[in-house]
Amino acid sequence: MTTLLNGLTTCIEPQMRAVEQLFEAELTSDLACVNVLIKHVSRFRGKMLRPMLVLLSGRATGNLTDAHVTLATVVEMVHMATLVHDDVLDDAELRRKGATINHLRGNEAAVLLGDYLISHSYHLCSSLQSQFASRVIAATTNRVCEGELLQIDNRNNLDLDEETYFKIIGRKTAILCATCCLLGAKFAGASNERIAQLEQYGQCIGTAFQIQDDILDIVGDAGVVGKTLGIDVEKQKLTLPMIHFLRTAPKEHRALLRSLLQSREADKIERIRNLILPSSSLDYARGQAEKLIARARAALTTLPDTEARQVLDTLAEFVVNRPV
Amino acid sequence: MTTLLNGLTTCIEPQMRAVEQLFEAELTSDLACVNVLIKHVSRFRGKMLRPMLVLLSGRATGNLTDAHVTLATVVEMVHMATLVHDDVLDDAELRRKGATINHLRGNEAAVLLGDYLISHSYHLCSSLQSQFASRVIAATTNRVCEGELLQIDNRNNLDLDEETYFKIIGRKTAILCATCCLLGAKFAGASNERIAQLEQYGQCIGTAFQIQDDILDIVGDAGVVGKTLGIDVEKQKLTLPMIHFLRTAPKEHRALLRSLLQSREADKIERIRNLILPSSSLDYARGQAEKLIARARAALTTLPDTEARQVLDTLAEFVVNRPV
Repeated sequence: MTTLLNGLTTCIEPQMRAVEQLFEAELTSDLACVNVLIKHVSRFRGKMLRPMLVLLSGRATGNLTDAHVTLATVVEMVHMATLVHDDVLDDAELRRKGATINHLRGNEAAVLLGDYLISHSYHLCSSLQSQFASRVIAATTNRVCEGELLQIDNRNNLDLDEETYFKIIGRKTAILCATCCLLGAKFAGASNERIAQLEQYGQCIGTAFQIQDDILDIVGDAGVVGKTLGIDVEKQKLTLPMIHFLRTAPKEHRALLRSLLQSREADKIERIRNLILPSSSLDYARGQAEKLIARARAALTTLPDTEARQVLDTLAEFVVNRPV
Repeated sequence: MTTLLNGLTTCIEPQMRAVEQLFEAELTSDLACVNVLIKHVSRFRGKMLRPMLVLLSGRATGNLTDAHVTLATVVEMVHMATLVHDDVLDDAELRRKGATINHLRGNEAAVLLGDYLISHSYHLCSSLQSQFASRVIAATTNRVCEGELLQIDNRNNLDLDEETYFKIIGRKTAILCATCCLLGAKFAGASNERIAQLEQYGQCIGTAFQIQDDILDIVGDAGVVGKTLGIDVEKQKLTLPMIHFLRTAPKEHRALLRSLLQSREADKIERIRNLILPSSSLDYARGQAEKLIARARAALTTLPDTEARQVLDTLAEFVVNRPV
């Protein structure tokens, strides 16, 4: 996805470079041991989707300012913090093809590094003139934590329904994307109506993004995706394809999935994959993601016809078609 | 200590009650599973030292405002977040005589609950009119994280020197106390000179507090202190008494402590205690703490003679005399 997205950032190129520089400068410490950890985390920084959303939303609705670069850096730090703490939670051995921080240095360093990232994100955000962004960012992270807590509360819950599933991913994943778009538009001086449209766009692609992640966790190729797969299964986190399967598949198939999810057999992930692949549940999940993408694209239609709007439109499609 | 401190809060009584109410109100979620965790954490909320520092510093230098209650709640949330994440790090089985969050619910819930607390602290802080407090709080948490990272980087380092030890506890513990006093005075409209004096007071008692904690980790009674003792020893974190011992004790005693610290024997904590108790190292550490307390009290001498100033003065003494 990184390569595909690279061609899309022409209209925000200088700002994206400024984000990378600010990211590194803000995290540099006078302590050598901190810089070693930070250097490691920077190396597996990903596709910078969230900074792109801030900058493109700003560009699509007005002019970019220094505040946009600051905000784009803030959201990337927030995102990285959640990744680092997710690695503690999931005990994932691979993240973006690099060793995870917890695998390399132990859970303690991972907890502290996540704290360091989140603290620096708030600190950077507080450098802006008004409190507006600080309030929105902190309200967003409140929600992200709730989504994560709701998710672990429903671990092992084989009766998880779609409503709760969407509540979890809405808070855990989608809201940060929505906030990126909201802040980008707000700081470009967009009208409240435009801001709401972009927030809607962000919420929809964020939700679709998570559904696609869930699908990849079942069908993806670890070598291509670049992270440990089958984690959702291992942790008994029900995802949309599984929820659909447990509601619609023939009775004996449903019983088999339930027992596989609870078993400790070594090949359970492969068996679950083989059980779900021929069913209609992956298509159902893909269909849900596609509906969200259509809604995201519809939210863009009344924006002025700019390169940034076109990129946001293309980005929406990439979310569900990405292999990674 | 709680009982002793209770009598000291008369001059800030209504504000302390307001802090407790705001703390609960801010952390309440629409998700039942979140409230269950929060309820548990509130039950072992401690002596509220940091809110006291904010309010007493304000009272000693001017008038208390609603902002003081907000700030006092913010610093308590920050402190609680560090406690919850410390429990993950230290794998402590007891904290304030209640089961720790990680023991009760697993490390994952503890990580997320800490994140929830820190996020809510920043959110509450961003409700203030100016960015000043947000900047100071986030700069403080940046430092706290650095102190913690420096500490784990020096775990197993039997050659840790006093300079690095003081750098660790200055950032890990003392700076939050300093920030409490700074913010309390600042929001009471105190002069820059007064603000600096109170910041100095906070930094000194915070450092002394940590030294006392280190002493109690060796000589304390788990039943009285209310948390697992010997953690520093278990985790090979050198504390001031041990650093002094390894520098000054007879050669064979130093060698014995080094080998005990690296051993996995079941009775190592008791043997270390018996080795250090008859030496001069605990007195040395106590002496260092007392010097800091004298410096803290000296910083108060030019303040107007108010009840709040007297309480701050008494509080400084309690820090090194507390059994808990």
